[in-house]
Amino acid sequence: MSDSIVNTSALSRQERRLRLRGPGIDEWLLGRLPLGGVPIEIRLWNGAARCFSPDPPIGSLWIADRRTLLGLLFNTEMAFGEAYREGRARVDGDLVGLLESVFRARNPLAVRAWHRLRPVGALRRRGNTPLRSRLNVHHHYDLGNAFYRLWLDREMVYTCAYFPSPDDELETAQLAKMELVCHKLGLRPGDRVVEAGCGWGALARHMAREHGAVVRAFNISHEQITYARDQAAREDLTERVEFIEDDYRNISGTYDHFVSVGMLEHVGQEHLSALGEVIHRTLPPDGRGLLHFIGRNRPRPLDAWIRKRIFPGGYPPALDEVLHEILEPWDFSVLDVENLRLHYALTLEHWRRRFDRHETTIQAMYDDSFVRTWRLYLASAEAAFRSGWMQLFQIVFARGRSNGIPWRRTVEK
Amino acid sequence: MSDSIVNTSALSRQERRLRLRGPGIDEWLLGRLPLGGVPIEIRLWNGAARCFSPDPPIGSLWIADRRTLLGLLFNTEMAFGEAYREGRARVDGDLVGLLESVFRARNPLAVRAWHRLRPVGALRRRGNTPLRSRLNVHHHYDLGNAFYRLWLDREMVYTCAYFPSPDDELETAQLAKMELVCHKLGLRPGDRVVEAGCGWGALARHMAREHGAVVRAFNISHEQITYARDQAAREDLTERVEFIEDDYRNISGTYDHFVSVGMLEHVGQEHLSALGEVIHRTLPPDGRGLLHFIGRNRPRPLDAWIRKRIFPGGYPPALDEVLHEILEPWDFSVLDVENLRLHYALTLEHWRRRFDRHETTIQAMYDDSFVRTWRLYLASAEAAFRSGWMQLFQIVFARGRSNGIPWRRTVEK
Repeated sequence: MSDSIVNTSALSRQERRLRLRGPGIDEWLLGRLPLGGVPIEIRLWNGAARCFSPDPPIGSLWIADRRTLLGLLFNTEMAFGEAYREGRARVDGDLVGLLESVFRARNPLAVRAWHRLRPVGALRRRGNTPLRSRLNVHHHYDLGNAFYRLWLDREMVYTCAYFPSPDDELETAQLAKMELVCHKLGLRPGDRVVEAGCGWGALARHMAREHGAVVRAFNISHEQITYARDQAAREDLTERVEFIEDDYRNISGTYDHFVSVGMLEHVGQEHLSALGEVIHRTLPPDGRGLLHFIGRNRPRPLDAWIRKRIFPGGYPPALDEVLHEILEPWDFSVLDVENLRLHYALTLEHWRRRFDRHETTIQAMYDDSFVRTWRLYLASAEAAFRSGWMQLFQIVFARGRSNGIPWRRTVEK
Repeated sequence: MSDSIVNTSALSRQERRLRLRGPGIDEWLLGRLPLGGVPIEIRLWNGAARCFSPDPPIGSLWIADRRTLLGLLFNTEMAFGEAYREGRARVDGDLVGLLESVFRARNPLAVRAWHRLRPVGALRRRGNTPLRSRLNVHHHYDLGNAFYRLWLDREMVYTCAYFPSPDDELETAQLAKMELVCHKLGLRPGDRVVEAGCGWGALARHMAREHGAVVRAFNISHEQITYARDQAAREDLTERVEFIEDDYRNISGTYDHFVSVGMLEHVGQEHLSALGEVIHRTLPPDGRGLLHFIGRNRPRPLDAWIRKRIFPGGYPPALDEVLHEILEPWDFSVLDVENLRLHYALTLEHWRRRFDRHETTIQAMYDDSFVRTWRLYLASAEAAFRSGWMQLFQIVFARGRSNGIPWRRTVEK
């Protein structure tokens, strides 16, 4: 001890400051990480290590420096995402399992207080105006079709699949999902359908090809619309499917069915009611609609890092927000709700495995930090659905007065 | 004209006042009734008559006096109910069809403004405290089991049935409903179930008898609980079913399943969150719950007359109120919602037909105004479900983190 005092006095001011915050401090900080009960080992740059549960760790997180450690303490989500992306945090072991454990260790009810502290207004300010929506969508969906083709299914469906059996292939499950949607809508030959947010157009083409529907599909991603149109031409479907590069707010006309699969989470909390207005002016008295979206059990902003790096402007709404903002103002009747979150976890597992198989190619197309960013996004989304932190809802609805509704449920073919 | 002036001058003051409000005024008032487009004929005591639609009338409403006519203009729901009950308003023709037309002629969106005018606080004041709940329930459910036995099914189920086919008998449909509930809960032998509001105990006994469940069922209707216990003893089920005469707020213990069929509409808007707390403390991590209740597309108070004469303290909540007040605060996940309103319309049709067959008996048990009151209640409820004015929701839910949820839907046996 006295030895160390003697040595210290001989150090420069800078060195002394570092020593004061030395290994002891770092280990103390390490112990402050909110990971109690999570079967994780954390290893620091200086060799210090700590486990947070008596159970054998699922994996190990290596932290490169003190800045990263401090970030994790004060702004966990963002700091972890950025550090992982930049290689200052590295996970050895089961990334999804580890993230799922972290999500499960959170108290979902604590979010309430947290939500009160940050007024909703702060979220609302980032309004998804038509222009901002276009930029947001461009950020994610215009990364290049070649990239998505590497790990999506053959039909390029970038939304939750539906696995009749967990052992089914992704291709089977995406087809089954499209059939499930058609079945729930009660789609018949000649029915007019409008689709808000159509991705690469798989569902629109499926409805036209397999069910004889006449579809107008809207999307503001230029790359996706171009692909969708080419594909429709190749399949000789241009008479029955029209792909329109425009915002959902500009949908006009009336249709037997309104369908939106995986767009609601991009609409934003403050524009949900605008979507409700669009549906209201679009759906005739006996029309039927379906909304398929990533949602929540309770309102809560999207993870800040995911919002920054993956889905700017994204907001997975709570089920009651969707009812309150979109369906209730126009007296729509909810006919059916199904929660498919475990199917989304499995879909993401398929995507992540395919993504991993093409790691070298993707690295060459972009760079290392892109690969890490996307791996973390895919893994954390899978963990979020597996831990119940996120939900996948399909809502079927009709006009309040319409009796043109199914008498009872039947199972899709 | 001059002749009438001469005559008038010879009348007493009282007579003159009557004459001034005479037939011309009554017909003018008649024309002010908000029935535009409804295929109804209205006939007044003085022989005046009017149709409100070019279509042939579904039925005819006879109005006995000016007081009734004025009431219909200024306080339609209450005045019509009271006049019908007292015989001052009489309907010839299809009562249900007529009421359905009236409901369909209303603008459901106009309710919003109406709702704003009457602060929710006014509704909240009629709080369903445990004591008031007991009085409210006594008012309706303790009318005498003999009365309900006349027109309910064999098992005495007084909630929406589930008709696998619209031609099925009521007895079949009530059994199918109980099976549907057990199926949605995934009930297995030995499972512990708590039921909040158990009526005459049919579901609780069904779960024990057909599925080997162990059930504790709560109800504050003395007549119903007595019947339920007798019936359980007769069926030798007392080891597995316990009927408890107590308020849902006093439920204790934990159970694999929480089920409530047809009680939520008696809980009241201001106590929904209390029910949520009960469910939260009752359901273990892998528990599953089901709420079956009369609901709305949008919040709106129960018809004032129904509240006065049939269901004091009743409030059929909008779906999003149930999510927001009961499930969301505790991070429950909605797994499944089904809207069975057409099944309730058919159930009510069965009840009404049976009721009508026993009219003379019921008249002898009570009196004429009781018969008219109940006929109007059964008919208007049927019309409300048929016109989309009311909904019947079944919600299945689980803890947000539980993965013990069905992989996919299957159809009940």
